[in-house]
Amino acid sequence: MADHDTIRLRVFSLNCWGIRYLSKHRLERYAMIGELLSREQHDIVLLQEVWSENDFLGLKRKLSSSHPHSHYFKSGVIGSGLATFSRHRIHDAFLYRYSLNGYPYMAHHGDWFGGKAVGVVILKIGRLTAHVYVTHLHAEYCRDKDSYLPHRVVQAWELQHFIRHTSSGADLVILGGDLNMHPQDLGTRLLRTYTGLLDGYTETAKFDGCEGGITLIADNPFINPKELCPFENGVRIDYILYKGSGRVSLRCVSLATTKGSVPGHPFPYSDHEALSAELELHTTTQQAGGDQTREELDCASAKLAELVDMVTEARTEVKVGLHCAERMRYTAARTGVMGLALLLLELAIGAVPWLALGADQPFPRTSFYLLGALCFAILLIAFLFYVFYTMELKSLQGAEDQMRLAVGSLQERLKGFPQTHPLNSLCRPLDEQDTCPLTPEE
Amino acid sequence: MADHDTIRLRVFSLNCWGIRYLSKHRLERYAMIGELLSREQHDIVLLQEVWSENDFLGLKRKLSSSHPHSHYFKSGVIGSGLATFSRHRIHDAFLYRYSLNGYPYMAHHGDWFGGKAVGVVILKIGRLTAHVYVTHLHAEYCRDKDSYLPHRVVQAWELQHFIRHTSSGADLVILGGDLNMHPQDLGTRLLRTYTGLLDGYTETAKFDGCEGGITLIADNPFINPKELCPFENGVRIDYILYKGSGRVSLRCVSLATTKGSVPGHPFPYSDHEALSAELELHTTTQQAGGDQTREELDCASAKLAELVDMVTEARTEVKVGLHCAERMRYTAARTGVMGLALLLLELAIGAVPWLALGADQPFPRTSFYLLGALCFAILLIAFLFYVFYTMELKSLQGAEDQMRLAVGSLQERLKGFPQTHPLNSLCRPLDEQDTCPLTPEE
Repeated sequence: MADHDTIRLRVFSLNCWGIRYLSKHRLERYAMIGELLSREQHDIVLLQEVWSENDFLGLKRKLSSSHPHSHYFKSGVIGSGLATFSRHRIHDAFLYRYSLNGYPYMAHHGDWFGGKAVGVVILKIGRLTAHVYVTHLHAEYCRDKDSYLPHRVVQAWELQHFIRHTSSGADLVILGGDLNMHPQDLGTRLLRTYTGLLDGYTETAKFDGCEGGITLIADNPFINPKELCPFENGVRIDYILYKGSGRVSLRCVSLATTKGSVPGHPFPYSDHEALSAELELHTTTQQAGGDQTREELDCASAKLAELVDMVTEARTEVKVGLHCAERMRYTAARTGVMGLALLLLELAIGAVPWLALGADQPFPRTSFYLLGALCFAILLIAFLFYVFYTMELKSLQGAEDQMRLAVGSLQERLKGFPQTHPLNSLCRPLDEQDTCPLTPEE
Repeated sequence: MADHDTIRLRVFSLNCWGIRYLSKHRLERYAMIGELLSREQHDIVLLQEVWSENDFLGLKRKLSSSHPHSHYFKSGVIGSGLATFSRHRIHDAFLYRYSLNGYPYMAHHGDWFGGKAVGVVILKIGRLTAHVYVTHLHAEYCRDKDSYLPHRVVQAWELQHFIRHTSSGADLVILGGDLNMHPQDLGTRLLRTYTGLLDGYTETAKFDGCEGGITLIADNPFINPKELCPFENGVRIDYILYKGSGRVSLRCVSLATTKGSVPGHPFPYSDHEALSAELELHTTTQQAGGDQTREELDCASAKLAELVDMVTEARTEVKVGLHCAERMRYTAARTGVMGLALLLLELAIGAVPWLALGADQPFPRTSFYLLGALCFAILLIAFLFYVFYTMELKSLQGAEDQMRLAVGSLQERLKGFPQTHPLNSLCRPLDEQDTCPLTPEE
């Protein structure tokens, strides 16, 4: 393997908290973000929660000279909130909208209306093709009783699927965004292990930022510290992940986060901290596909076994979601049937006085119409809920089917490994691995 | 280039028309399809409109020995209808649901409830990786006044995007399905030119089937020939498309369609004709990436120019869709405002007698409640429509943005070509091209 060329690439990621009318000091904060970006001139900027297209266009005007290329991903009712700016030409963009993303009737949480998705832009950096992904997963509103967990697990599953299948031709892969998952959460582990993506925070030798790399900090004035409980200082849910390929080796030289307050300004950039990573790319000659050593085989085998466990854990989580969705759909169906029964009963009572009991005992007109309207409303709403929960069920079942298939395929591949050593014997922890990335489809 | 190995692969595709309670002779037809498949033993079977999971499971039981591997893609309210059976192990499956797919209130057309999508299964055929796609696009109900055209164009756009981005690692790519588009329709041209996929019907030297390869024929007893007008004999809307890679060259040895009636049975397999293709794979040594000849350069340049025209045409179509969606959203908003005004007016009239005109002129109670319920219903329905059309708008805008980006990128690449010859001078028609497939991202 011979080094030919070295390129430095600076990547920035921030959840901008840009909800129109609701997010505090939105315009001032966008002005601050614009200043920061045009000053720092990162190669790639990945933004989340840019809910208003006007805000994106404002940034685009401001960054027209420093970042001439940009893309705003549209999806859902109010957009995906995802935006990217680049100093390198964007040749293509593609969006994958997650099949599950909360509930429309949970309007105060608002995730459903956001149309959460993963977007990819394809850049040419010199002669290299970079696939740069930006995403934002469903928020976690209550860690102890997280009713959105199955949805987030399915999103993480679809995210790893999308990255794995769309990055085969890439020389380097970068993912930035707000995953709304802690580093050791099932979804994060699934994503990292399946795709082989490395975590900038754990990989870098030079970190400057909040302790533990946290990006949602208790000191932030826009955050209610009680919502972070039991994590007193904060949590790490924003990431810059990356991986190279046969032609490019990638190293995270440094990673930094903002630390809440911004010098010279009364408030921080957002309710999240921004991440900026400096990556070093070495283009190399294609590595000869020689035989794997005993240690590499053991390492790959251990990773496969670990993946089987993870996917099985994810299936369990999806099954919990399936159980809930089935119960909710049953409730919707039962409510609809009750509404229909009530309507028929009303019609019968309304009809009987004329037909049998005579016109002297009519159903009071006002009550008749009011009850009729109520029954009709119940029927309509129950129908809408039934349709929605059926769609949720189909998506959960689809994810579970894919997971079952994946476990079967992983186990099949595990059979091909010689098993003289205990599975985890020679392998470093997953967090530290960088030499044997596993890309199961290759 | 030296041939090493030759493999024959038989692929089958059929739209099964399996709507529960509505499709005629559904169970008998599935029994016939099952017999055909277990007798013919195709390597890969791609089915569409398998709307009932029970029908899929019935086929799965029947084909358990001939096709031990299968996958059923779940999506939407009643499923995607897509199913695949394979003699080769399925290692992975992934579904991309189209962002646009008709309207839920067009229940008699039903496409929206189907959750139309493209599914991919990844097979290992010997040492080769095959990416096999199956899809079903939105139906065309009236060719002259096709209100679904923008949706179908966006689906074709997303389909080519999905195939292009997920097939980089594949040795061979196969797509089968009901595209609901004629061979020269914009969507088909866009799909074939962008992905480099070849059409089995136009490529094969040995065709046995309905004249012109039509798959929706006037003779079919389940079809009303008037619906095919002005195409008296029928239309070709089902396809088997394929392409190889650097490691594999692929040739369509033969293609056949069923011809309506089935010997020994009173009716055909479906309202569509089935397609079966025999593909011949030659594994080759990697072709040296030598300099392109003058003719090859001209050919690629002509293709790029053609693609620019096509994407521009698609953008125009999407803009028509945008215009319609904007108008419909405006109508929904206006209806909502009128409903609200009516409600406020009613409340004012209801309140005034007590407040100002005295209790001797009350608003008749029955009318009051009826009108109130009506206003509420108008408001709710207008809100739902508004949300739906906003989502449609976002998806159309997203597709248009991607198309604008694509045109820019294609034009940029065109600049790199020497332009001494007129663009189309040396290039054969697109239909006949097989030596210079263009995969713009590579």
